[in-house]
Amino acid sequence: MSDIRTLSESACFGGVQSFHETDSAAIGLPMKFGVYRPPQSGNEPLPMVLCLAGLTCTHETFAIKAGAQQHAARHGLVLVTPDTSPRDTGINGAASDWDFGEGAGFYLDATAEPWRARFRMETHVADELRAIVVEHFGGDDSRVGILGHSMGGHGALTLALRRPGRYRSVSAVAPIAAPTRCPWGQKAFGHYFGPESEAHAAWRAHDASELIRDSARRLPPLLVDQGLGDAFLADGQLLPDALEAACAASGQPLTLRRHPRYDHGYWFIQSVIGDQLAHHARLLDRAL
Amino acid sequence: MSDIRTLSESACFGGVQSFHETDSAAIGLPMKFGVYRPPQSGNEPLPMVLCLAGLTCTHETFAIKAGAQQHAARHGLVLVTPDTSPRDTGINGAASDWDFGEGAGFYLDATAEPWRARFRMETHVADELRAIVVEHFGGDDSRVGILGHSMGGHGALTLALRRPGRYRSVSAVAPIAAPTRCPWGQKAFGHYFGPESEAHAAWRAHDASELIRDSARRLPPLLVDQGLGDAFLADGQLLPDALEAACAASGQPLTLRRHPRYDHGYWFIQSVIGDQLAHHARLLDRAL
Repeated sequence: MSDIRTLSESACFGGVQSFHETDSAAIGLPMKFGVYRPPQSGNEPLPMVLCLAGLTCTHETFAIKAGAQQHAARHGLVLVTPDTSPRDTGINGAASDWDFGEGAGFYLDATAEPWRARFRMETHVADELRAIVVEHFGGDDSRVGILGHSMGGHGALTLALRRPGRYRSVSAVAPIAAPTRCPWGQKAFGHYFGPESEAHAAWRAHDASELIRDSARRLPPLLVDQGLGDAFLADGQLLPDALEAACAASGQPLTLRRHPRYDHGYWFIQSVIGDQLAHHARLLDRAL
Repeated sequence: MSDIRTLSESACFGGVQSFHETDSAAIGLPMKFGVYRPPQSGNEPLPMVLCLAGLTCTHETFAIKAGAQQHAARHGLVLVTPDTSPRDTGINGAASDWDFGEGAGFYLDATAEPWRARFRMETHVADELRAIVVEHFGGDDSRVGILGHSMGGHGALTLALRRPGRYRSVSAVAPIAAPTRCPWGQKAFGHYFGPESEAHAAWRAHDASELIRDSARRLPPLLVDQGLGDAFLADGQLLPDALEAACAASGQPLTLRRHPRYDHGYWFIQSVIGDQLAHHARLLDRAL
């Protein structure tokens, strides 16, 4: 594990929660990430689930706040928590906005200047980090799931849609489901890809509700949880109805659960993460 | 609820996690706290558990990191998370050390200058906050449990021992079990009460392993969890053996579980909090 530095390692629910840093070739900077290895870890590779966090979060946030490890321990799942963007990029303006730049990489490979050299989270997460977990942490490359929250929900849906057949289970909590139609997504895509008028294809190719209308990009049955007390739902940032319409139009199986009273935060995530990981375990053939 | 200001309120596991601020008469400053009300909340008061956090923590730390709400929801328990000290006291030196002063109130009423006016966490937690939760958040004053971690474990044990009959269930995770014999406790007591040579009685009266030898202070059966990979155990800050010896000498029922590999942090707490809250629920007559 010469190129993986261990930052901390703690026993948790009979397994091990650890945090690491690697020199990312995709990004050209050190990138941190977390891994939970369940008590079943040993010689046999285990199914793994990539857990993508939302705006402003780090590689620690989901690991600390979602309460996911207990369920991963029960089901025998490896959990992986990437960071949400490159850090200390030195790019002018990259650290000035909470909803764009550092802490807000949107799990895509930017194509516009000055972002394209560093903001390559799609390659970092979907290729680089996945391979690291398979090589060094006992993940089974043939049994990989992906989930995420908010911007991370957008990431989970789009990475799975853009890589057909690579994920056996997909879910999201309060995802940004149609980024080309909401302020967060429009701001991010405008910077990372350029204006919609000039980069229309790239915008569409990173919008789950657009991609899902392409029948070649069929996903395993989706599970999405959305709180109805979520202020960002009311603000039109999440647009689950657009995802629901796209799935209905294209025959994509979707279970969209709307939960009265719940808001956008980790109090909601921890309340549904047990169901979400059971969904992954079932599809990854590790159900109890 | 005129004197209780609500800072936030979020649905969580079918109940509500909220944070509040009150003008503490005991301390003479605003004090924040968290409350979890389980889905069973209604007209009937529910058993409540005070959850005391450790050095450097705030009223949010245990609520965010311990993963306790799901168990409280199952058992029908109200959870209360106080802060660990007064804040913004303006006392010279109060904010300069991580293991003393602000963030490190040790759940006692200080008697020495300049701490005695503000550092009155025993009265704040055991009297004031308890009454607030009974009056405003549906807590049952006849069914109160107390638990804590590290400095909060010391707090749970000593508050229960110093108020015989007031707590029906008591537990701790990695408590500072004999503060008069460890550096953290000696430093804190030296400031809050004065040197041991001059304040010997006060020191002893706030040390669980000393108090427990007094048979008039019998507690309900204790549950204590200690990780054996805990660096502060190795450093002699926790001294569970002293607690065990005192319980054995005085006939105090104690279940002390020693867990290989686990460290001092919330990765350990979340791994045992389910068992601890089941212990409280059983003794508070709310077991399933």
